[in-house]
Amino acid sequence: MHSFFNPQSIAVIGATPKTFKGGYAILKNLKTTFKGRIYPINPQYAEIEGLPCFPSIKDIPEAVDLAIIFIAAVHVPAALEQCAIKGVSGIMIESGGFAEADEKGKSLQDAIRSFVERTGIRVWGPNCMGLVDGIRGHIFSFTDPKVLPFCLHPGPVSLIVQSGMLSAGFVIDILSHGITGFSKVCSIGNKADIDESDVLSFLLEDPDTRCVGLYLESFVNGRRFMDLCRKSDKPVIVLKGGRSRKGAEAAVSHTASLAGNYRVAAGALAQAGAYEARDFHQLVDFCRTLALYPPKRNKSRGRIAVITFSGAAGIVSTDFMNELDLDVAELSEATKIRLGRIFPEWMPVANPVDIWPAIEQHSGTGLDIYSLAMEAALDDPGVDAVLVHAFSGYTRIRLDFDKISRQSRSSGKPVLLWLPGNRDDAFQVQIKARDCGVLVFHELYRAVSCLSILFQRTGTCWLPEGNQPVPTDELQNIPDDISDLLNNAGGSLDERLSKNILKSFGIPTVEETWIKDPRLCESKAISMGFPLVMKGLQTGVVHKTEHGLVELNIVGPEEARQSFERLLQKMNGRGSVLMQKQLQGDVELIMGAIRDPQFGPCVMIGIGGRMADLIEDSVFTVAPLSVKEALDAIGRLRTQTLLDGFRGSQPADRHVLASLMVTLGHLMARYPRIQEIDINPILVSGSQAVAVDATVVLSNP
Amino acid sequence: MHSFFNPQSIAVIGATPKTFKGGYAILKNLKTTFKGRIYPINPQYAEIEGLPCFPSIKDIPEAVDLAIIFIAAVHVPAALEQCAIKGVSGIMIESGGFAEADEKGKSLQDAIRSFVERTGIRVWGPNCMGLVDGIRGHIFSFTDPKVLPFCLHPGPVSLIVQSGMLSAGFVIDILSHGITGFSKVCSIGNKADIDESDVLSFLLEDPDTRCVGLYLESFVNGRRFMDLCRKSDKPVIVLKGGRSRKGAEAAVSHTASLAGNYRVAAGALAQAGAYEARDFHQLVDFCRTLALYPPKRNKSRGRIAVITFSGAAGIVSTDFMNELDLDVAELSEATKIRLGRIFPEWMPVANPVDIWPAIEQHSGTGLDIYSLAMEAALDDPGVDAVLVHAFSGYTRIRLDFDKISRQSRSSGKPVLLWLPGNRDDAFQVQIKARDCGVLVFHELYRAVSCLSILFQRTGTCWLPEGNQPVPTDELQNIPDDISDLLNNAGGSLDERLSKNILKSFGIPTVEETWIKDPRLCESKAISMGFPLVMKGLQTGVVHKTEHGLVELNIVGPEEARQSFERLLQKMNGRGSVLMQKQLQGDVELIMGAIRDPQFGPCVMIGIGGRMADLIEDSVFTVAPLSVKEALDAIGRLRTQTLLDGFRGSQPADRHVLASLMVTLGHLMARYPRIQEIDINPILVSGSQAVAVDATVVLSNP
Repeated sequence: MHSFFNPQSIAVIGATPKTFKGGYAILKNLKTTFKGRIYPINPQYAEIEGLPCFPSIKDIPEAVDLAIIFIAAVHVPAALEQCAIKGVSGIMIESGGFAEADEKGKSLQDAIRSFVERTGIRVWGPNCMGLVDGIRGHIFSFTDPKVLPFCLHPGPVSLIVQSGMLSAGFVIDILSHGITGFSKVCSIGNKADIDESDVLSFLLEDPDTRCVGLYLESFVNGRRFMDLCRKSDKPVIVLKGGRSRKGAEAAVSHTASLAGNYRVAAGALAQAGAYEARDFHQLVDFCRTLALYPPKRNKSRGRIAVITFSGAAGIVSTDFMNELDLDVAELSEATKIRLGRIFPEWMPVANPVDIWPAIEQHSGTGLDIYSLAMEAALDDPGVDAVLVHAFSGYTRIRLDFDKISRQSRSSGKPVLLWLPGNRDDAFQVQIKARDCGVLVFHELYRAVSCLSILFQRTGTCWLPEGNQPVPTDELQNIPDDISDLLNNAGGSLDERLSKNILKSFGIPTVEETWIKDPRLCESKAISMGFPLVMKGLQTGVVHKTEHGLVELNIVGPEEARQSFERLLQKMNGRGSVLMQKQLQGDVELIMGAIRDPQFGPCVMIGIGGRMADLIEDSVFTVAPLSVKEALDAIGRLRTQTLLDGFRGSQPADRHVLASLMVTLGHLMARYPRIQEIDINPILVSGSQAVAVDATVVLSNP
Repeated sequence: MHSFFNPQSIAVIGATPKTFKGGYAILKNLKTTFKGRIYPINPQYAEIEGLPCFPSIKDIPEAVDLAIIFIAAVHVPAALEQCAIKGVSGIMIESGGFAEADEKGKSLQDAIRSFVERTGIRVWGPNCMGLVDGIRGHIFSFTDPKVLPFCLHPGPVSLIVQSGMLSAGFVIDILSHGITGFSKVCSIGNKADIDESDVLSFLLEDPDTRCVGLYLESFVNGRRFMDLCRKSDKPVIVLKGGRSRKGAEAAVSHTASLAGNYRVAAGALAQAGAYEARDFHQLVDFCRTLALYPPKRNKSRGRIAVITFSGAAGIVSTDFMNELDLDVAELSEATKIRLGRIFPEWMPVANPVDIWPAIEQHSGTGLDIYSLAMEAALDDPGVDAVLVHAFSGYTRIRLDFDKISRQSRSSGKPVLLWLPGNRDDAFQVQIKARDCGVLVFHELYRAVSCLSILFQRTGTCWLPEGNQPVPTDELQNIPDDISDLLNNAGGSLDERLSKNILKSFGIPTVEETWIKDPRLCESKAISMGFPLVMKGLQTGVVHKTEHGLVELNIVGPEEARQSFERLLQKMNGRGSVLMQKQLQGDVELIMGAIRDPQFGPCVMIGIGGRMADLIEDSVFTVAPLSVKEALDAIGRLRTQTLLDGFRGSQPADRHVLASLMVTLGHLMARYPRIQEIDINPILVSGSQAVAVDATVVLSNP
């Protein structure tokens, strides 16, 4: 990757003097920003922009590190061959017309892939805007040469984006508003060869990058991406495009990428300790925040002191904090006494700390009330971070950003500022704050949402345990019939067979009996005890309730016989009947497993029963997984209070649930023929968890 | 109110030449912006800022319409008397130190109230920043004289705020960024006399105001506020400070106001057709959006066409729209053909409409792709609004705002633009768009949230029916014992008495019997039929389950006797036992009623049972209410799909639920001694709704 990020010489294939063309913009941007040798390539010109122009890359007398290509897609394969002959280290294809366009483009992109496999030369793109390096000042992109070179600014944030707009227009927006500078901005386009994980891997080692933000519509290799996140202590923040089903449809029509199942991706990111953003601006907000305050292993709780000049802003901050699961810090008595000294006598000290009356009282004395209040708050052991409200352009509010930065660093506690104000003053303040390493936000809710990302209580600590190997022991004593089934059957197995598989792997299933002889129905019912459930099993019918094939609340032998007859009638005699104890669990859950095209085998836990029709609450994790990871996943269920026992019911044993998830994960890892497992419901009471119904789907033999 | 908004002459009591004082700022701002006569009042000076100064308001030779007071609180009562002698029409007290400060301040504020009652002179404030009028250019405020007068700009939005910051700093922020201009900005402070409803009433009649936004921590008279909203067709948007419990605590310590129960206020606002905002910036966003596109009685559905230059932005827009309950419009075949003509051949037309390839294809032809795409989208009958993505500062993206404004007006469909960009260009564009009446947003999610407010599907139409009178007929045939109870009892009534009251008003209650004689327990159980529930009733114990006083699933006479004995034992013999049919409803709800200090009697409906422990989902409405209003309230339950029947259960009859709510409302209106009604649960199956447990709380006799 080095040749892309730090080349000594660059050839621009498709350079042109026509100023409205991309090939001109790339050359112009290089001329303005790149200190190494630049070779325009175009057979029609002898010289462009004062640089000697070559008909082909082969004609360049010196060595070339990087070739940037911006010519019509159809001519790209030939250009690649010339690059190979020349022996370049890397190739960046910025022109479009490949897999994102049509069938012809798809085959051209396939040609790029085979070129890479054949030559080992790495290719970046196609259909991308290349690379912008804020530290070195490089622009390897066809972005407007009149704008970006003049607002480029170094900073700790790097971006990897699957969108040209984000690497050009949006970055100009962020830079020109003084929000943050950038280390590298990488537009990776169609990812024919180099993908998000390749670039991420480089940036996690890059000393200039303190935080990586990504806009992705798909993951080429979800597991590699997760491993990179796990192994690094640099924060990784992902904005996943195509979260909604409709969003995913748009993704497919936009690029050649497959927008994977968002819920799987979200689970995988959380599992790997990555963060999620929901909007472009939020992506940059989270990046600049986490770059300045990298999360710690032992997170503090998120008890926030608010220092404000406005009671209303204090109240609305508190409302936001409450929504985002942050605590309003209880100030210590010592802090109250300290603040009381600068407060007017009539005013009690509370959090939010309204310092306006103190500012008025000490007006003209030169006392820096903001600094005093911040110092007091940062010294309080019950305060984990400080949210400061100020205003730019009002002479009575003065902030010393160098001091704030020092205060924050020496206390080790984040300080975030909400700073609305007169446009010109606000901009000066933004620039000053950026340069001092102080976080300033123009909108209150954005400041509070960045506070919340700092103290995110997802249950995932920053450096989670690595993946566990599949234990082979416990999966070894499998009965022959189950092995046969797993090796030879195919498609969707019925409830009885599915649960037999689960049972043989140690997952408790409901007590049940399979009735074929109607004469035995009553006696079996009596020996099992009431109430009972009876279900009709019919090949290919998974949703039994919808087909009227579930009879509940059977309280006597007579009713059992009647149910049996009704069920057989409904199935026209073609099916069998399963009789089960009717269980009553404290909590009804769903568990399952799937194979995701981007992340491989994944285990799911969710809220089941009636609740599930109202609240979609399920969490995916990538398998195999550790007990710790399973517990973390359970801790990400929004309605997990359900597990904590209420109205006298006993709390569900999370360790039992976690170990079932681990088992499901091992099953998926061990038996690649299992495509899907669905346990719905699994009834939980304390440490008892019983699978009541299940479906296992195998790949076809 | 006229004397506050359009005075011919103003006296400033507390005017001073000391430039760091509020009394100077008020005078200076008046001198800069007010065309009428200005009289500084201060016994220490003969002249301030070139104006003759008077020792007292009484000494002014001409008539004075408005007195603005900025002196220490303790001197205010005397100044008020002088104003009365002078015969001013209105008084604006901007100084603080009243109820927001301490006990002394509270009594000074009481003195203001008695002055108003005695003299009939209206008082605005105290503890406020007065009035800013963007149309007339008036500033009656101690805001910094160096800033606001130079960025003031007229516009259709008026604000009423219970916060100085919002009327000064924040307004400067909005104005200086070119977001919108303002008609009136009213800082109403402690509301000793003039409150939010007084000002709202004026602004709803003000021809310069097209939309009113309010920041409120409390409502002085919630019902009057609701009536104003109902009667006007101008949109009213409220940001309620103190939504969270912690927010409310902050509200109490901030001003003298009582931050009422947020859930009640939210229900009342929705009932009255007002909108809610969650943030300061969102308040202004919603105001400028609704000012330009006032909602219609027959709302269209919210099918949005997205015109973008970036696939990624299209995808993320779709994700946001999905979250905010907006539809991605299905484009008609005609529209697809029309757009197909400007699209490159290889590209299928879809929504989001990515026009970048078309822009590239027609580069240099002068074809205005943006206008053509917008026209096509606006002409499509399946499109209700258009979200346009553009970028400022990039030469290949040019927007004709006059044309956009015309297109939007002639189609009657909203057009909203997301427009990030280079800072200076973006500002020019913002100003141009503001002046053309085109909505521009710097952040994508803000644009989408404004689209969502335009098509808000809360179930409340814009002009809801007025309140219904209490029908006296149906509440007349009340048994004597119930009348006695309602007139003479007090405190929390037990389950049996409470349900007797409800039953006598036509609310169905569960079949039950009160058992005093243990010998009758078994026979009564047999005659009632199993399964049964038995409950121990003990004076003062409302939460029976928590006290172990509920025995469920009693399936035989023997078990009934045992339960009876256990219950009596738990109550140490001091109590009685209630025996009920154990019902199984399809849905478990809660209904109830309270008296809110700001809104009076209110009826509540919510999700009950286990679900309620997980999801707080309840809606309040102000009583008495019509069936239509009750249905609207039911339609605001987030988890209302619960009522629509699933897994084979029959849908709940919403009309039955609505009529029960209406009855509860009438009860509250008719019997002021009822403080609280709690029906928990009420079991619903189809059109059957049965109160299973209830508590009625009466005021103490």
